[in-house]
Amino acid sequence: MKEEALRYRLLDAQLSLAREKERAVILLLSGHAVTHKGVVVNRLNHWLENRHTEVHALGPSSEEQSRPYWWRYWRRVPDRGRLGIFIHGWYGDALFARAERRLSPGAFQDRLAEIRAFEAELAAEGVVVLKLWTDIGRREQRRHLEELQLDPARAWQVGPNEWQRHTQHAVIEAIGRTLRDDTEAPHAPWRRLPFRAPGEQLTRVARSLLSVMECPPEPPATTLSTLSEEAPGIPSLRRVSAAVHEPIDKAAYRERLAHGQARLANNARELARRRIPVVIAFEGHDAAGKGGGIHRVTAALDARQYRVYRIGAPSDEELALPWGWRFWRRLPADGRIALFDRSWYGRVLVERVEGLASEAQWQRAYGEIRHFEQQLLKHGGVMIKLFLAIDKEEQLKRFEARAATPHKRHKLTDDDWRNRERWDDYQRAIDEMFARTHAPGAEWSLIACDDKRRARLAVLEGVNERLEARLASAV
Amino acid sequence: MKEEALRYRLLDAQLSLAREKERAVILLLSGHAVTHKGVVVNRLNHWLENRHTEVHALGPSSEEQSRPYWWRYWRRVPDRGRLGIFIHGWYGDALFARAERRLSPGAFQDRLAEIRAFEAELAAEGVVVLKLWTDIGRREQRRHLEELQLDPARAWQVGPNEWQRHTQHAVIEAIGRTLRDDTEAPHAPWRRLPFRAPGEQLTRVARSLLSVMECPPEPPATTLSTLSEEAPGIPSLRRVSAAVHEPIDKAAYRERLAHGQARLANNARELARRRIPVVIAFEGHDAAGKGGGIHRVTAALDARQYRVYRIGAPSDEELALPWGWRFWRRLPADGRIALFDRSWYGRVLVERVEGLASEAQWQRAYGEIRHFEQQLLKHGGVMIKLFLAIDKEEQLKRFEARAATPHKRHKLTDDDWRNRERWDDYQRAIDEMFARTHAPGAEWSLIACDDKRRARLAVLEGVNERLEARLASAV
Repeated sequence: MKEEALRYRLLDAQLSLAREKERAVILLLSGHAVTHKGVVVNRLNHWLENRHTEVHALGPSSEEQSRPYWWRYWRRVPDRGRLGIFIHGWYGDALFARAERRLSPGAFQDRLAEIRAFEAELAAEGVVVLKLWTDIGRREQRRHLEELQLDPARAWQVGPNEWQRHTQHAVIEAIGRTLRDDTEAPHAPWRRLPFRAPGEQLTRVARSLLSVMECPPEPPATTLSTLSEEAPGIPSLRRVSAAVHEPIDKAAYRERLAHGQARLANNARELARRRIPVVIAFEGHDAAGKGGGIHRVTAALDARQYRVYRIGAPSDEELALPWGWRFWRRLPADGRIALFDRSWYGRVLVERVEGLASEAQWQRAYGEIRHFEQQLLKHGGVMIKLFLAIDKEEQLKRFEARAATPHKRHKLTDDDWRNRERWDDYQRAIDEMFARTHAPGAEWSLIACDDKRRARLAVLEGVNERLEARLASAV
Repeated sequence: MKEEALRYRLLDAQLSLAREKERAVILLLSGHAVTHKGVVVNRLNHWLENRHTEVHALGPSSEEQSRPYWWRYWRRVPDRGRLGIFIHGWYGDALFARAERRLSPGAFQDRLAEIRAFEAELAAEGVVVLKLWTDIGRREQRRHLEELQLDPARAWQVGPNEWQRHTQHAVIEAIGRTLRDDTEAPHAPWRRLPFRAPGEQLTRVARSLLSVMECPPEPPATTLSTLSEEAPGIPSLRRVSAAVHEPIDKAAYRERLAHGQARLANNARELARRRIPVVIAFEGHDAAGKGGGIHRVTAALDARQYRVYRIGAPSDEELALPWGWRFWRRLPADGRIALFDRSWYGRVLVERVEGLASEAQWQRAYGEIRHFEQQLLKHGGVMIKLFLAIDKEEQLKRFEARAATPHKRHKLTDDDWRNRERWDDYQRAIDEMFARTHAPGAEWSLIACDDKRRARLAVLEGVNERLEARLASAV
């Protein structure tokens, strides 16, 4: 194909992409220094319709550094219909951190697993990832560096970084091989680019890009979890409903509530001081008392420290991005607390039961969720997951009470009644959720809520215990 | 009204707000130190449904510091249906900067004008702003500070900042008076809160909030521009269509294009080095060649430095926020370049002509636009506005050529034909736009595009001249 023809075919493919809005495409270039990555991206951009393109090549901002690592890339995932170009991106982070020994061999392996999980998740949600590795021989690199330095118009392209990467040529070569081998996947393939003049390199890049645009790879059937073990003591709804709870009198309740909230206030201040982020997810049966539980928690917190997110129908900006984006975007900064009134578990509960997600989607969500929660833990955060359970008779009583009380009527919707009809399906989905996402550091607390007072104290207690366990650790 | 009743009425008002999604509410507390602002906000938050509330009290992040001042507040404006609570917010910035003499008297006056413009713009778009000033006498403040310091449970609330603000009590008092006097408005009223025990203070705050929620103030009829002068030489479509242009031959065109792009590449690198942000807005008649013009500019730029935004229909997240938000969110960081393919001028062009905005909306947009552009200039940025004009016959020729060329057909839509029918209305709207927004530092360049080559050179030339003028200044 001649250059002119290639150029128009690529533009055409991009315009179809933008028109159809079914997929997004990521083109990532990594590899050795001074291999025309920047020049090629600039020229490629000149070929493309740049209203539908975005280029990312900057280091992390302070907002990014104060959140789990992958937050910075999740916020840059292109919308459906768009092309995102990354120079180095997550591969550069892994490559240079390992070359400079800021990542241990074990941490590097973990990072590779995270990359696989990230790319699989994107691919499953319609984001095609194409990865290009720019090669250059050591001697050729030296020649090229010297040549650049002598050219006044291009000398600015060479700094101490480029020379350092030259001295590390062999190391980068070896790490690059591992990177590529361990992250090669049909849905996120690597292509190698031998060092050539920019014009020729551009043609090769354009051809690779065209091929994934015209024939997008099959998305993976399943995505990978970075976790395999489960935590001991998986909760089960059967056990909770069998237990019998004695009522608790009002005076005792008030005292214990005040005590729990004072403890929580102290814990929260200490978390802020140590800049530890916290996520608390509230799930539960309709009318189990999520709102009341959240309220008892936030009452103990400084309003400047937390934010409550109610997860409902996604916005159209959210719909244009992979499913996980709507939760990643809400991860709290260090020292802050995010409370979720319903959460990412909607995928394996309501979306599963009501058929809003396909079986493939909710099946792979277990792994995606574990990956997501794992990232918060790895960043040093606390992940608290509470399930507020009531039994079917108690729910009916509460629905009827709500219907009869004017200022509570707004809490009862047609959805609530509809969900109730599928009670058994929900019970099965909930137990399966426990079994598949009760992971170390992200354990579920199943709270019996047939007695409201006891339930609220248990919520506070559950939160406090988890926070104190985290605060007791040294880091 | 008893506390219990007040509490439920406030909650009720908040739930209506959330259900109706017609308005957002901002509650801002500023004033003297140690006046229970934090305690009151915490307790108030406990009264409210915190799924619909957000509290803001943090200093700016690095992403915020690298953009025009108001960006940090625009990004925190609550969606319709939500309540945003600010502790100090933009008043704290002005108050303390003036008290510490980081703002000169003149700059302080300018800031007050900006505050008026910001609040008027919000109010006109359905955001109610209620401002509370917390009073305390100097002696009382000292007593309270000492009391806090002696209480182990609350001593952490007092730091050197609080003591410094105590020593500046008289200054803060005086500045506060000016602040309130100069920013009092029916649509963004001030209320003063004498120092009381937290419980009583809370009741007063809740009552004020309830009153603006139940009886929201009238939005202002017009919003204020912070600018009054116009730049000399307002362009006019009449003059441009009268001019006759000689054609330019291909060889000369290529040479001048290459020269202009090389100049632009140098200018852009220097802008990045000096961390100067640039916004380039492309407006023009349909088929005048905006796409081609943008392409000739971006071809000279490093893809990592710029981003092109095509402004079309707003997303639903954008629709839930004041009109200006969709442009503020896209302001480039320092050293970066944002190109807009159509822009905020849509409000006074297509939205005006097609009746998508009410007359009140597009009339006040002139002032809002000037305020917006002024903020970029004040931050040290460059604002370039290009209008690409063709005459009616030339447009018809181009439409017909597009319709006849398969790979250009996607560029021609029904909208284009519809717009053409209202040619004269558009011409009037365009000339009025020039007259009302041709401001110093944000001048319009009107480019005759009947000859494509000449037009592209003029675009490059126009951009280069403005960038070089900015680079020639010392800062």
